[in-house]
Amino acid sequence: MNELTMNLKSHSKVPLYEQIYGYIKKDIQSGRIAYKEKLPSTRALAKHLEVSRSTVELAYEQLLSEGYIEAEPYRGFFVAQTEELYHLERERPMSAVSKEQKRRYRYDFSPNGVDLRSFPYNVWRKLSKDILLDDRTELFRSGDSKGELSFRIAIGSYLHQARGVNCSPEQIIIGAGSDYILMLLSMILGKDRRIAFEDPAYKQAYHMARALGYETVPVSMDRNGMKVSELEESEADTVYVTPSHQYPTGIVMPINRRMELLRWALKKPDRYVVEDDYDSEYRYKGRPIPALQGYDAHEKVIYLGTFSRSIAPAIRLSYMVLPHPLLDEYERRYDFMHSTVSKVDQMIVRRFLEEGYYERHLNKTRALYKSRHDVLIEGLRPLLDILTISGEHAGVHLLLTFRNGRTEEELIRRAAKEDIRIYGMSDCRIRKYGNEKPTILLGYANLTEEQIQEAVKILNRCFR
Amino acid sequence: MNELTMNLKSHSKVPLYEQIYGYIKKDIQSGRIAYKEKLPSTRALAKHLEVSRSTVELAYEQLLSEGYIEAEPYRGFFVAQTEELYHLERERPMSAVSKEQKRRYRYDFSPNGVDLRSFPYNVWRKLSKDILLDDRTELFRSGDSKGELSFRIAIGSYLHQARGVNCSPEQIIIGAGSDYILMLLSMILGKDRRIAFEDPAYKQAYHMARALGYETVPVSMDRNGMKVSELEESEADTVYVTPSHQYPTGIVMPINRRMELLRWALKKPDRYVVEDDYDSEYRYKGRPIPALQGYDAHEKVIYLGTFSRSIAPAIRLSYMVLPHPLLDEYERRYDFMHSTVSKVDQMIVRRFLEEGYYERHLNKTRALYKSRHDVLIEGLRPLLDILTISGEHAGVHLLLTFRNGRTEEELIRRAAKEDIRIYGMSDCRIRKYGNEKPTILLGYANLTEEQIQEAVKILNRCFR
Repeated sequence: MNELTMNLKSHSKVPLYEQIYGYIKKDIQSGRIAYKEKLPSTRALAKHLEVSRSTVELAYEQLLSEGYIEAEPYRGFFVAQTEELYHLERERPMSAVSKEQKRRYRYDFSPNGVDLRSFPYNVWRKLSKDILLDDRTELFRSGDSKGELSFRIAIGSYLHQARGVNCSPEQIIIGAGSDYILMLLSMILGKDRRIAFEDPAYKQAYHMARALGYETVPVSMDRNGMKVSELEESEADTVYVTPSHQYPTGIVMPINRRMELLRWALKKPDRYVVEDDYDSEYRYKGRPIPALQGYDAHEKVIYLGTFSRSIAPAIRLSYMVLPHPLLDEYERRYDFMHSTVSKVDQMIVRRFLEEGYYERHLNKTRALYKSRHDVLIEGLRPLLDILTISGEHAGVHLLLTFRNGRTEEELIRRAAKEDIRIYGMSDCRIRKYGNEKPTILLGYANLTEEQIQEAVKILNRCFR
Repeated sequence: MNELTMNLKSHSKVPLYEQIYGYIKKDIQSGRIAYKEKLPSTRALAKHLEVSRSTVELAYEQLLSEGYIEAEPYRGFFVAQTEELYHLERERPMSAVSKEQKRRYRYDFSPNGVDLRSFPYNVWRKLSKDILLDDRTELFRSGDSKGELSFRIAIGSYLHQARGVNCSPEQIIIGAGSDYILMLLSMILGKDRRIAFEDPAYKQAYHMARALGYETVPVSMDRNGMKVSELEESEADTVYVTPSHQYPTGIVMPINRRMELLRWALKKPDRYVVEDDYDSEYRYKGRPIPALQGYDAHEKVIYLGTFSRSIAPAIRLSYMVLPHPLLDEYERRYDFMHSTVSKVDQMIVRRFLEEGYYERHLNKTRALYKSRHDVLIEGLRPLLDILTISGEHAGVHLLLTFRNGRTEEELIRRAAKEDIRIYGMSDCRIRKYGNEKPTILLGYANLTEEQIQEAVKILNRCFR
């Protein structure tokens, strides 16, 4: 082969050498230039195409590095063996973006809401600007596997003061959200475990445990939380609990039950209690309930916390406090992993904590949520003959248990017709017997007082 | 019990009700107030302590909610059963922060370096400020499990243009770093797999696979990359490769070997090729090598990419492109998981891509790295009688293979004495036979041209 015809465009944005490379590659792929055929010399082709020799050399080098041609010393360039070209037709057409739009409701009583209007945008912007001015290169270096030490010190001190958690900063591991923390924890704990969950449960964690391949077992609750006798019988070696404010029932586990739970864990060396302290920040009456971890003197409690709920869901920032045997395991085997949280975010939240912004933010949202909580309860008063309210004074949702014969599905459907989204307790139940009392969850964090008043007026009609 | 003596401080920062609560709790814990004992009425205690009745009521409510006391209708408050109090002595003293400081070298030829001085701080700051002004509440809402659609569209279009990757945005899943992406991928692929790795390998991925519990098998390479015949014999069903620029050897897998690899995958339905395209951005000669994924017409390639390497390690942002069978599995089983990347970071990098900043940043760093690459090669020229250079013209490191009788350990030790850190190929080898040619990795991304010149002058002495 001595002639290669190609229609080169000298004013194209594609460099000449790329155009030449493209033509030859296509010819090889289509079989027009056969295996072992010799390409023209760079000098000949340059002359033929009226381009510089280095342009052709660049094109040949590219073909060489991708393996389309081979160089033989003193002989020149030859087409490499590509006969058995992998089929290039696609089995499946590329589909367009086609995700079903979720229905948006006028009023959404989501129990996982967060008031986003109260997010401290100005402070956040200021801190993020300061940090990008100050820390410069250090900020973009790969960081500590557990998260930055200065941030872990700030979290440790917050946890000690606000939650009664006893730990050193080295026990704290930061991660990009609670799902990730559970993935990491599952690597440390190993897969060969049977995990007990409160029933009804916080389903996100339950789904994660299932998705991670764990055997799970639901354990019933009484008014003090998970029944430890049933836990004992379940043969679980790990238990996931929300003792400070059970999700979804709102039960606060009393001190006796906590001790029972810790004693259960103490009976066998590989038993662990996972304490998810997901929303302890929100209590509208009295002091916060101290964390179970603070009572644990035998390295049995794994404490989980998050900023995604108290600051904003889009901030992916959670953490766990590991007891020493698991910390040793982490340091021995998983310390090589990179942190999943950007240093910028770590530094912003660190200063948010250290400079008192977090406390102020919590006080502000707490006051906001309390007013909404009060307005919602007040609005539901006319319905007290057909329902009982529980789970008050904490968290960001209430529970309504109905005794007027309407089922959960019926109540949800009737509200949906009025463009109001409410949530059934069934979604939280692991086991369903069919004789559960119809119970609705009403979250109030992301609705204004006016919206709550308007919506509850309508609910008063459709709950009857 | 009618008298409760306590020394209340009215000017303390601790509210009175908390002081009362604290005293009673301590008395119950120490056994000074016994099980079933009746507490004084709120009225009596208020009078006794000279505080308001509501103060005492608050204290009692707190004790109630934590379970230290119980309320009996018409009778009053009684101490709950807490005899078997869980031991409160700690088994292990809290240790202070005591992580060994890593040795800092004057010159560090890390093969995983990134030039941080060239990070576009101003653009980053501007974008991050704009985003916090513009998007407001939407930004802090919990987002799409795969990452924001607009961001995935931007990545898809970049991958198509720059890497020849064929995919729709729905196939792209964003995650907080490559380690996380591998964790997520392992959930989708399942644990019952045998994963083949190039030997020598990118050890971070190899360690992740091991930490995730996979059986792994090393496969040898020739000058075209992994030997597919050996792969076939290995009985692996998954293979992890870096075809565009093998780490650490720098080998570009030619088209024929790529086709062989794809044909290997096609032989059995559950075989997959994981293509880690970790640093394809850096080639100093010719066009970028197109991704293997672009040749795959049978949904066999899982493509991995990252911005952590091309922007900054502290930006935790990687992604994978799933073939449809695995995408279906993800959507069926793992779609409930929350994204691990904050929306702010997603939006910053989206605009970074869309507004041309990323391309400019790559051009800038590419020019920078090329100069350093050239200076390093020039500086090593006097040593060409005792070593061979390979892996040039791409990536951010070179390989030096020695034939002067010195071992890797010896070379590393001699450099360390001069405060220079260099890296041995042994760290990348999975199997060690002891007869490997001593090979050193020299990364140049995070050293200036002057530093490289200074350091290489010293290396010229200690390599002899």
